[in-house]
Amino acid sequence: MSDRPNAARNRQLFMTRFPEGEAGPQDFEVREAPVPEPKDGEVLVEAQYLSVDAALRLIMRDSKDFLFRVQPGDLVRGTVAGRIVESRNPAFKEGDYVTGGLGVQNYSVSDGAGLSLVDTAIAPLPSWLGGMGVSGLTAYFAVTEECRLGPGKTLVVNGAAGAVGSVAGQIGRILGARVIGITGSDDKARWLTEELGFDVAINYKKGDLYDQLVAAAPDRIDAIFDNVGGPILNESLRWIGMRGTVLMCGSTSQYTQEKIEGPSNYIWLGTMRARMQGFVVYDYLDKFAEAQKQIAQWMNEGKLVLRDNIVDGDVGDFPDVFQRLYRGENRGKMVIRLPAATA
Amino acid sequence: MSDRPNAARNRQLFMTRFPEGEAGPQDFEVREAPVPEPKDGEVLVEAQYLSVDAALRLIMRDSKDFLFRVQPGDLVRGTVAGRIVESRNPAFKEGDYVTGGLGVQNYSVSDGAGLSLVDTAIAPLPSWLGGMGVSGLTAYFAVTEECRLGPGKTLVVNGAAGAVGSVAGQIGRILGARVIGITGSDDKARWLTEELGFDVAINYKKGDLYDQLVAAAPDRIDAIFDNVGGPILNESLRWIGMRGTVLMCGSTSQYTQEKIEGPSNYIWLGTMRARMQGFVVYDYLDKFAEAQKQIAQWMNEGKLVLRDNIVDGDVGDFPDVFQRLYRGENRGKMVIRLPAATA
Repeated sequence: MSDRPNAARNRQLFMTRFPEGEAGPQDFEVREAPVPEPKDGEVLVEAQYLSVDAALRLIMRDSKDFLFRVQPGDLVRGTVAGRIVESRNPAFKEGDYVTGGLGVQNYSVSDGAGLSLVDTAIAPLPSWLGGMGVSGLTAYFAVTEECRLGPGKTLVVNGAAGAVGSVAGQIGRILGARVIGITGSDDKARWLTEELGFDVAINYKKGDLYDQLVAAAPDRIDAIFDNVGGPILNESLRWIGMRGTVLMCGSTSQYTQEKIEGPSNYIWLGTMRARMQGFVVYDYLDKFAEAQKQIAQWMNEGKLVLRDNIVDGDVGDFPDVFQRLYRGENRGKMVIRLPAATA
Repeated sequence: MSDRPNAARNRQLFMTRFPEGEAGPQDFEVREAPVPEPKDGEVLVEAQYLSVDAALRLIMRDSKDFLFRVQPGDLVRGTVAGRIVESRNPAFKEGDYVTGGLGVQNYSVSDGAGLSLVDTAIAPLPSWLGGMGVSGLTAYFAVTEECRLGPGKTLVVNGAAGAVGSVAGQIGRILGARVIGITGSDDKARWLTEELGFDVAINYKKGDLYDQLVAAAPDRIDAIFDNVGGPILNESLRWIGMRGTVLMCGSTSQYTQEKIEGPSNYIWLGTMRARMQGFVVYDYLDKFAEAQKQIAQWMNEGKLVLRDNIVDGDVGDFPDVFQRLYRGENRGKMVIRLPAATA
């Protein structure tokens, strides 16, 4: 028994060369292949949504420093949300919805390792790539477990209108902190304060960022949730408060740079006994289900707004949408809805 | 009653301009003044040793960012060890030895606030500026309380032959860690391994530092005790290990720079869930006495070697000795013994 479409072809996105600066259509090509056949113990997944993640740019570098890399000639790594269309694995049945790091393609076979079953009754399928997925979970664990927040504390979120930042700021508010978001347009700033409940939103492209931070947080900053690195991180570091926390959850501004720029204001960590620390959401794997339950509850209570920035397209549109992400055109999680989408 | 020397003059060191790059004799001048008279409740201290501290360069900057600054026309800040030569304060008597931040001068009056009585039976007077003073206490609290060390862990000490680094590395060894010191000459490297018991010492001026670190610590580094910042910190950061700690106890390489250089390899904190944190020894003020007891005990047991790098000189020699410190000519704590020294 199979729900597999007859005569369908698998469109797959390959990287053709290491991008220089911003990655774009010139660095990729689509190839077509037959839809693969699952063997015993495997399933066939039909992708319905493609997650568009800024972090991809980091591993498309000509560097041996990274364990996970995309090299010229490789299928582009990426997470999808999709449907089981054929199962030869008792843990999955046809029609089940799953997410997994299956790469930017329409069809893939998997032995089930790394696939997560998702319940579309709790949240719509694309949300499992966003607020209910790795983006939201990153925000959740970073803010609840590492930022040392609470009433009376001030949280600054860089990249505040993004998939992770928009959730991080709202969770900061739920914990009682005063939340300042930094973003790149007046429109996005308005969205943060008017729809997501941020206390202050700063457009870093308008006026001096440091002066705006000092005005918004006269008693310095207790925690910085950093997504972007570069000058925005650097200016915020200059205003970090006593025993503050700087949580590094990504450095998107640096992924496109040949040479990564270090934040000279790291020196303020010294004076302020503050700490800057790395964070990887997979360290909390055991608690994912519990966190998703909490996120869903907050959504139902109207405390947390998840915005999925859904774009209709095909595998071949991925490079263009990825570029739009790097140009800051998204609000919340950017995903591509493929023609196959049913949920 | 007073032990005050008749006809003595007080030589005082003033900064005449903000130094550019390395600070040197051109930036200072000595002025003579009468020996001051203590009022009721005050004491007169005769300096016997001047502490020569790298951190001074940091506050001799034309920047409003620092709370404590030395500006053109100011007496140079500095810590001295000396003797009470006249007391009108019941907490001190003539002949008592003290340390305190009295500035670079032969005589000063104090109301006693910030003066510490020291016991020269436990350690010689100049050691109270070094291993028994702020340098040694910085090493002690940083390594024992913040570096998260123990058997099986690897500690890298930058600026390992300095006043703080040389003690930090030895305390790392006492805690059971494997200790790698980074220094600037083969002579100092030999001193670290042969006399202070460091497991490995690297001369960063010879060969590629990163390659040498990888060879010395094949399983990456658990803690970095950083004193120097700049390229040495940056290369070490690239080899920080999983959940590692980078303790910032100074950034001497940056104090002479007009523009501070940020460590681009801070990005490795992310991948490695590591943390870089500031540290200020005065946060441990309550535990100073207990720590000094422990340091003295380790010295008596032969586990800890304190090296005071004593130079005979006068107040006017301070700028030259300070310059030598910045050229890495010291081993351990650099102090000037003034002609008045009796202990």
